[in-house]
Amino acid sequence: MPNRFAFVGGQTGRWHVRSMQTVRGLALADALRLDIVPAQGPVPSIPAAWTLHGLISNVRYATRAELTALQSKQQMLNRPTATRAALIPITKSAEWWALAQDERRTIFEDRSRHTAIGLQYLPAIARQLYHCRDVGEPFDFLTWFEYAPEHAEAFEELVGALRATVEWTYVEREIDIRLERE
Amino acid sequence: MPNRFAFVGGQTGRWHVRSMQTVRGLALADALRLDIVPAQGPVPSIPAAWTLHGLISNVRYATRAELTALQSKQQMLNRPTATRAALIPITKSAEWWALAQDERRTIFEDRSRHTAIGLQYLPAIARQLYHCRDVGEPFDFLTWFEYAPEHAEAFEELVGALRATVEWTYVEREIDIRLERE
Repeated sequence: MPNRFAFVGGQTGRWHVRSMQTVRGLALADALRLDIVPAQGPVPSIPAAWTLHGLISNVRYATRAELTALQSKQQMLNRPTATRAALIPITKSAEWWALAQDERRTIFEDRSRHTAIGLQYLPAIARQLYHCRDVGEPFDFLTWFEYAPEHAEAFEELVGALRATVEWTYVEREIDIRLERE
Repeated sequence: MPNRFAFVGGQTGRWHVRSMQTVRGLALADALRLDIVPAQGPVPSIPAAWTLHGLISNVRYATRAELTALQSKQQMLNRPTATRAALIPITKSAEWWALAQDERRTIFEDRSRHTAIGLQYLPAIARQLYHCRDVGEPFDFLTWFEYAPEHAEAFEELVGALRATVEWTYVEREIDIRLERE
């Protein structure tokens, strides 16, 4: 199973960019389209506005009960009906990363209910987290969501709920890219 | 602060290889010497038996109390007296990585006392963990230890204690490389 992917924003790609919004921190150059390509080896040099690399990894906070609940409800990516997507790259502060595991868990779930909030929007909104901290990338995470157009309003609720959490006070850069495919 | 390093085993390097032992799984080719070089960009192509890449990252299991205890006792790498070292690359099983965070924490600390055991050997034995799972490397972790020759026996105790834990039943590949510098 490939676990490394490149998100290539530019003039070409399967996904059409509907909007790009800088929520916090430095902007990212405008792109018209986006492609996601496996990046186990060198990535072919496509003319691009930007290329962001991310890795699928093991869960970092979910308990067995949470993981079982997620796995029983979540859907795969690439559902034919899921023609809308969002790519939301985020970076957390140095303060966050200096916290111990129990402190981060407390903020992530006990105080912010991150997993609990996400669970409310399953199976409608499929989600994949890509890690990119530690590998020389400008962001810590690339968060990726896919949903059908009729769940666009639910997706706004989900994003709004997460941004209102204590956890989000540790986010110092966030770009919200909304996408659509034919 | 650079966080990515290449461990280059071959004919040259600051560290002389005293021994290489395959503890579990596939062997690694013999090397006479080892160098550790920052690897933020492309690594210079040194003729080598093998090159292993690792990343320094945030803590994954330690609580605030454990982290404070570690930080108050642990020493930096490169102490002049620490002329002995060990590089122990390990890979854990797919079963380990499929566990939830609380399950891994329970095995790591509640049942195996990983941090508690390490604390007993501070400040004598300095330690640095490098992550390499998820980035196309053959191992999950490169564990690195530095100590003075008079603590060689204590180091054997530490390694023996860790290998006897429940956590170690999830280790499916382990190479034990002992080193010395002038």
